[in-house]
Amino acid sequence: MSSVESIQQQITEQGNKVRQLKTDKADKAVIDAEVAVLVGLKKKLAELTGEDPNGKKKSKQFVLKTPKGTKDYNDKEMSIREKIFTTITKIFKKHGAITIDTPVFELRDILSGKYGEDSKLIYDLEDQGGEKCSLRYDLTVPFARYLAMNCTANQSIKRYQIAKVYRRDQPAMTKGRMREFYQCDFDIAGNFESMVPDSEVITIMCEILTELEVGQFQVKLNHRQILDGIFQVCGVPKDNIRPISSAVDKLDKLPWADVKKEMVEEKNLAPEVADKIGEYVKLSGGAELCEKLEQDEILMANPNAKQGVALMKVLFKYLEIFQVADKVKFDLSLARGLDYYTGVIYEAVLTDLDEPTPEERAAAAKKSSSKNDEDDDSQARVGSIAAGGRYDNLVGMFAQGAKKNSSLQIPCVGVSIGVERVFSILLKRAKLEEVKANQAQVYVIAVGDGLLEERMRLASELWKAGIPTEFAYKAKPKLQNQFSYCDKERIPYSVIIGQGELEKGVVKIKNMASKVKEEGDGVEVNRTDLVKELLARLSL
Amino acid sequence: MSSVESIQQQITEQGNKVRQLKTDKADKAVIDAEVAVLVGLKKKLAELTGEDPNGKKKSKQFVLKTPKGTKDYNDKEMSIREKIFTTITKIFKKHGAITIDTPVFELRDILSGKYGEDSKLIYDLEDQGGEKCSLRYDLTVPFARYLAMNCTANQSIKRYQIAKVYRRDQPAMTKGRMREFYQCDFDIAGNFESMVPDSEVITIMCEILTELEVGQFQVKLNHRQILDGIFQVCGVPKDNIRPISSAVDKLDKLPWADVKKEMVEEKNLAPEVADKIGEYVKLSGGAELCEKLEQDEILMANPNAKQGVALMKVLFKYLEIFQVADKVKFDLSLARGLDYYTGVIYEAVLTDLDEPTPEERAAAAKKSSSKNDEDDDSQARVGSIAAGGRYDNLVGMFAQGAKKNSSLQIPCVGVSIGVERVFSILLKRAKLEEVKANQAQVYVIAVGDGLLEERMRLASELWKAGIPTEFAYKAKPKLQNQFSYCDKERIPYSVIIGQGELEKGVVKIKNMASKVKEEGDGVEVNRTDLVKELLARLSL
Repeated sequence: MSSVESIQQQITEQGNKVRQLKTDKADKAVIDAEVAVLVGLKKKLAELTGEDPNGKKKSKQFVLKTPKGTKDYNDKEMSIREKIFTTITKIFKKHGAITIDTPVFELRDILSGKYGEDSKLIYDLEDQGGEKCSLRYDLTVPFARYLAMNCTANQSIKRYQIAKVYRRDQPAMTKGRMREFYQCDFDIAGNFESMVPDSEVITIMCEILTELEVGQFQVKLNHRQILDGIFQVCGVPKDNIRPISSAVDKLDKLPWADVKKEMVEEKNLAPEVADKIGEYVKLSGGAELCEKLEQDEILMANPNAKQGVALMKVLFKYLEIFQVADKVKFDLSLARGLDYYTGVIYEAVLTDLDEPTPEERAAAAKKSSSKNDEDDDSQARVGSIAAGGRYDNLVGMFAQGAKKNSSLQIPCVGVSIGVERVFSILLKRAKLEEVKANQAQVYVIAVGDGLLEERMRLASELWKAGIPTEFAYKAKPKLQNQFSYCDKERIPYSVIIGQGELEKGVVKIKNMASKVKEEGDGVEVNRTDLVKELLARLSL
Repeated sequence: MSSVESIQQQITEQGNKVRQLKTDKADKAVIDAEVAVLVGLKKKLAELTGEDPNGKKKSKQFVLKTPKGTKDYNDKEMSIREKIFTTITKIFKKHGAITIDTPVFELRDILSGKYGEDSKLIYDLEDQGGEKCSLRYDLTVPFARYLAMNCTANQSIKRYQIAKVYRRDQPAMTKGRMREFYQCDFDIAGNFESMVPDSEVITIMCEILTELEVGQFQVKLNHRQILDGIFQVCGVPKDNIRPISSAVDKLDKLPWADVKKEMVEEKNLAPEVADKIGEYVKLSGGAELCEKLEQDEILMANPNAKQGVALMKVLFKYLEIFQVADKVKFDLSLARGLDYYTGVIYEAVLTDLDEPTPEERAAAAKKSSSKNDEDDDSQARVGSIAAGGRYDNLVGMFAQGAKKNSSLQIPCVGVSIGVERVFSILLKRAKLEEVKANQAQVYVIAVGDGLLEERMRLASELWKAGIPTEFAYKAKPKLQNQFSYCDKERIPYSVIIGQGELEKGVVKIKNMASKVKEEGDGVEVNRTDLVKELLARLSL
């Protein structure tokens, strides 16, 4: 048997082994290990048969595309994205926020154990020797890592970060679920007066959504301590609280009957306990709901719930001061998936979307419950456009894990704006042909003999004056092509020269947007006045 | 023998095998395949012994740091970086450039075979099923891929992209050589009049370096056709032209004697051929050098050289028109490493740096020649701050490789600004304590009893008026702490309220920067005039 045949046989055997393990539902690590052996054998075979597994063969054919779940953004799309980022950044800065930058990949240990089941969606870098790294999955864990590394207990920071994150999820490009996408996070970290930073974060979220004109929205509010109190007084066993909380979190997509069924059948909750929970989580309203809950003696006997309600009263008072109380709704069914929240939680939802049919809701909910109990700030949730909450223990987890400042605790509260969602809404609404990506304000045009050098001279003068200017890179461009370019790129003014103008020391300025007849082929101005005349017309 | 012992034995054997292959300098693919088998075995062992190789064990200790060769950027550093990016972007936009975005990772096949030896520095993503991907190594190859995918032969695009790229190089953080770093590329793609876009790219490079105030600089210019012509007339064998060109490229770091030695001893060039080359490459000057070369009948008999010189004459004429001719030097020793250049090449170098000693130069050159013949636009080169050139065939390579529009040719010319280099220069020069990262212009301060709600109300009013404002998130902050915060964050104005002011319906505005004595504790204004008074003081 040749060595090729020997390896082929080994591959067959190893392949059978892997399939058997999968059939037996063996531990993932065991399967991974056997798959790694299989991959090694295949590489050996490829090497022996002359097929290069690394694809380095010359004149190899390849597919011209971006990786699955990623895309290029063209000039017009970038123009819309930049406008979103600029608007958001301006508001963050107005509130005194700074920004930091962290690497796109982190040590794998930093990310592991932070995302529950979703850890399987983390992109790992190949082990090419040295440290094991993975692409960041969100911006919150890197921020907590940054705080644990750089801050002391009495420090505070108000930071935003707009950056790409990576999830090896099944992409759904049409729904905007990508493997590479932007997150936009704002967080306030530090020991402060209760609910003061929290109310500012909610205010900022409202300011941003209003300014971006994404449509009508409402911010649902709840408090983890109230939820926990409710679960406790209803009789949910301690280690069933997070699973039951996850079930409650689906009430925005599923009717109560389905959620109850999940609690009772999947999560083994006594039906009467579920019913008690049902009474609470259907409650919603404004500040007055706090008073109502305060009347509930059983609930108020629970210290968690009592403190939570008291804090919500304070929050409502502050939201009144910040004039956003009309945007919020106290909603006891809001639970939010992420484990790390410890206080107030919130989620902004668009209220003027086309309502999905009950079937669509159920399908969406089934899909998400089968594979993913975690909440996903950025991508999945129906109508959700921004979300966040208070997480007081995450930085401490890092400090402890690293045995560095192991007593460090930096309470945090933050929000993540669903910028990809915003982008798809604004993209759908935009008329792409009207989006001006090219910022040129003036196009230097020649009539007649090309006058390339003269056009270059004029463009250079305008650049020096700070006027965004282009000209055709041809020796003798056609007049029609020059005009078409202005139209296509929505360049508002042209500066026209011809042999006659050159000799007279003048140029013509033509307003390309207004089709004013009287202007004819432009207004003649002295060459020496050109910059002044253009600046007067442009709002730069 | 237990299965653990059996696997341990297999690991030992496989380890010996890998070491032997390495000793034998076996083909890399063979070694990789055996290493993969070894990794698989180690995973199996880890699984059996209960050690989780994925590091998912609970309460696992980990190191708080960023991966090797990467770093976090804090608020002040980000402030400097943002200023650089804003300055550059503004100039690109002034020339009518648009931006695009491409994914951080590309299909591995797109990158392979583009970087020669440096391909080993590419970061691969782990094969977790699906497509094989790698982090981008530069922005040029993704841009060429984008053009091949999206453009037809008669289209043109003027685009910039400022984004992170990844190289698994030995990091030298102190020298600013990182594994994750920004590149800033500007390219003009399309079929145009010779040297017109080329001269604009060089002009933009000069505008940017001037505006960034990085110091005195000079742009070295050369043309690949002239260089090739010189090599041909001197008698360099065809397949030795690129290696000899690489040797010439070291003349900025090494004396001619060393370069000649490399040509003769390492690259087997006849000494008399090297001497002839030496006569040419020591030439430098301005436009007049074109005339001089035109007198050289032997050189002019070479069609490449003849055309190159004619094009350089045109380029000089255009650079005169764009008023940057005084910044450039025609330098026949400039060769640039990258293979894909086909026309004019250029490199901006800082001329007022501390001159390295001859020993330092020699050491740097030896280091770079031993491991890397390629040029590195962004990181390595002594004094280099921006570089680029014309590459007319790269897009065609993609179109051909993908058998799509296989006749597509889009000529390109571009420049890469060394933004990380710019950043380290400006960072070194900046007084970090004077960098204002926090953009707040006003701090709302209470004297006396805290007045938290009143401060929130004032801040809210100012936010609505677009005035960047902060206040202390404490119920009763100390006056001294509030003043210190203004100092630390360089907030120019404070708005001060106390019980007295509240009752009188006034507030005080205090200029925190000027220590004007007369102002005392601030100027009293009517509460209703506050926004107006502040806007008059601030230049927003």
